[in-house]
Amino acid sequence: MSESNPNQAPKTVPLVDPTSSGIPLPKGFRWGGFRCGLKNKRKDVGIILSERPAVAAAAFTQNQSRAACVVISARAVANGELQAIVVNSGNANCCTGLQGERDAESMVRLTANALQISEDLVAVASTGVIGQLLDMSKVEKGIAGAVNGLTDSPVDFVEAILTTDLVEKEARAEVTAADGTKSTVYGCIKGSGMISPNMATLLAFVTTDADVSAFALKPLLDRVIGTTLNCLTVDSDTSTNDMAFLLANGASGSRPEEDAFERAVHSVLDSLTRQVARDGEGATKLVEVVAFGSAEPAKIARAIADSPLVKTAMFGCDPNWGRMMMAAGKAGVPFHPDQVTLAVECSGELHTLFEQGQPSPFDPKRVSSALKSDFVRILITVQPEGGPVPVESLASAHVYTCDFGYGYVRINAEYHT
Amino acid sequence: MSESNPNQAPKTVPLVDPTSSGIPLPKGFRWGGFRCGLKNKRKDVGIILSERPAVAAAAFTQNQSRAACVVISARAVANGELQAIVVNSGNANCCTGLQGERDAESMVRLTANALQISEDLVAVASTGVIGQLLDMSKVEKGIAGAVNGLTDSPVDFVEAILTTDLVEKEARAEVTAADGTKSTVYGCIKGSGMISPNMATLLAFVTTDADVSAFALKPLLDRVIGTTLNCLTVDSDTSTNDMAFLLANGASGSRPEEDAFERAVHSVLDSLTRQVARDGEGATKLVEVVAFGSAEPAKIARAIADSPLVKTAMFGCDPNWGRMMMAAGKAGVPFHPDQVTLAVECSGELHTLFEQGQPSPFDPKRVSSALKSDFVRILITVQPEGGPVPVESLASAHVYTCDFGYGYVRINAEYHT
Repeated sequence: MSESNPNQAPKTVPLVDPTSSGIPLPKGFRWGGFRCGLKNKRKDVGIILSERPAVAAAAFTQNQSRAACVVISARAVANGELQAIVVNSGNANCCTGLQGERDAESMVRLTANALQISEDLVAVASTGVIGQLLDMSKVEKGIAGAVNGLTDSPVDFVEAILTTDLVEKEARAEVTAADGTKSTVYGCIKGSGMISPNMATLLAFVTTDADVSAFALKPLLDRVIGTTLNCLTVDSDTSTNDMAFLLANGASGSRPEEDAFERAVHSVLDSLTRQVARDGEGATKLVEVVAFGSAEPAKIARAIADSPLVKTAMFGCDPNWGRMMMAAGKAGVPFHPDQVTLAVECSGELHTLFEQGQPSPFDPKRVSSALKSDFVRILITVQPEGGPVPVESLASAHVYTCDFGYGYVRINAEYHT
Repeated sequence: MSESNPNQAPKTVPLVDPTSSGIPLPKGFRWGGFRCGLKNKRKDVGIILSERPAVAAAAFTQNQSRAACVVISARAVANGELQAIVVNSGNANCCTGLQGERDAESMVRLTANALQISEDLVAVASTGVIGQLLDMSKVEKGIAGAVNGLTDSPVDFVEAILTTDLVEKEARAEVTAADGTKSTVYGCIKGSGMISPNMATLLAFVTTDADVSAFALKPLLDRVIGTTLNCLTVDSDTSTNDMAFLLANGASGSRPEEDAFERAVHSVLDSLTRQVARDGEGATKLVEVVAFGSAEPAKIARAIADSPLVKTAMFGCDPNWGRMMMAAGKAGVPFHPDQVTLAVECSGELHTLFEQGQPSPFDPKRVSSALKSDFVRILITVQPEGGPVPVESLASAHVYTCDFGYGYVRINAEYHT
């Protein structure tokens, strides 16, 4: 969730990532993916290798029930350098005790040995069912197969990190430095529920060939995550295995300005975040909640985006602004209904539903029809006491989410662990 | 949600209210209910009248989007006395601006005039769709009809307060004073979602003929609510119109000890709270989450009870303890999985699922079968660092909730406002 003070209303978020077409992959990275049988279908072990040690930063779940790989990877990235990441899907290796820690350490060692690099330069990520021990004989084969199959294309890797995801999610951006040289940023992500039926988590991998040795990479990544991944809720359930990595290997020889580089990383992670919301379990649409005004617009946006009643209304294409008022009102942020205006933006139309304490006249059938769009933005403005000011002068915050329908229940109730 | 330090593990909660059989209604109250057409079926205006002004206390929603009736009733009960409450269902009269305030005031005036009592002694409650003006010509007929039909039985009143509720919910208790005289406590409640498809809220009415003029009634009610109504979540959505009333008219002439009286009020509100969770929208079972240990067991219990993934697992009869660990871990309370033990109690069986950091061996089919029960208790113990102590010495907290299935989506997505 982000709080910012833009001098303009938010622009429509593009629904297809526009940054990906025609932009080459960052130089100096190799990718692998192999099917070893941890999942019933699709590849399930993936490896990212940078040809040289990359400057690296990462962010990890704040859940107290952290998986072993979270602890080990946080330690690995602490000195700001990584060369490889090994990932398995189908098993989160979480709440698996001492044996789970040993298995995560084995994944690092097997990968380092196969790549002939130092163990200190290898991070590990796992996603899938919680509470079952890894079948290490399968994992060992998976790592060997992924290393043998390393190529310049992420296609196998991107498949290997998926769990309940329906689609693969990638984004690219390009940065031009002051001297005219170029570098690129490529990211991929998995995630469909914050935690999925028997499978956990969101994993994000962002790579770049920019030379960013002059930047404080971890604060930069944290700033970007603050307005992208941390603005995302599918079901309010924080996973045990979340990880986001940024690896910069400098292979382009291009040294961009920090601002331009941060914008490129932001555009990639913002796109990936929206792709995850859209691919939320059972989702039929992407919903963006934008809150303007009040002391804490982020809390208000989050309360609306997390409300099961708002999300089921979106599933039913119901312009039920009473539920939005209810959700905003439980956020713990003081306001009076007279200060509030509510609108929805969808299918190219803007419909005001409630304005400064009064229900607005609107045609429910027309708004319901517009809500059938696969992208809906809910706009809530909380004017200060003492009268309205221009929306542009109010602080704002946004949260990405999705609707909530039968599919979520089906995925999460009918699958048995 | 409650935090207490009982010297024993919680006893099994009885599924049928045992206090109601054979206990008479409190003396000196009259009840009315009438159908005026605010709802498509069932009675929709109800009145409680005490023959004399009753000592009264009440609690109200903390939602910022408060209905007019919440403000008016809070003012009415501020001096600690009420003689009547008028209630309508089918329309929450919330977010309806100045006209909504006038309509709520009219309901008070019409009721006071019909009963020939002071307006200051009348509270008003509304539940139903948010954002539509009341049809006051219907309400006027409803109030007249309810007053004309006042009787010694709450049967019409209890029907008149329902919205999406499937069942009526009542409970009784008896208190014996030191001098051997007796008084009784009767309560009824409505509520099925914290907020329902087009209808809002939970309303609770507790009456007693005990003479409680010596007690500080509002702190007593707040204490009881802290371990009953405030321990309830159906969907984490706090309604805009919630109200709970306690009216004591002293008609029995019996003056109980304060402790005994508080226990009686507690037993009535605890029963009503469990009845609401069981009648949660789309629910197939009552779920009680009990947390022992940690600095804040209430936060851990609430996080588990609010988790859509835990609730869909309960709907699917899936002993998915990984989701419980995930939910506990996001509560913001520090712990290590090694400190945690998880169990479920259902169908008369206790199954340990996870014990001090290690998955427990259990038969998934047997536990899944036991989870088909209409009452499931989830038990989580967070031992202090440095080794286990007897569970009895740990602080504890409980939350009542229900499972989360297709019915919730159906009720909340397919109904259009």
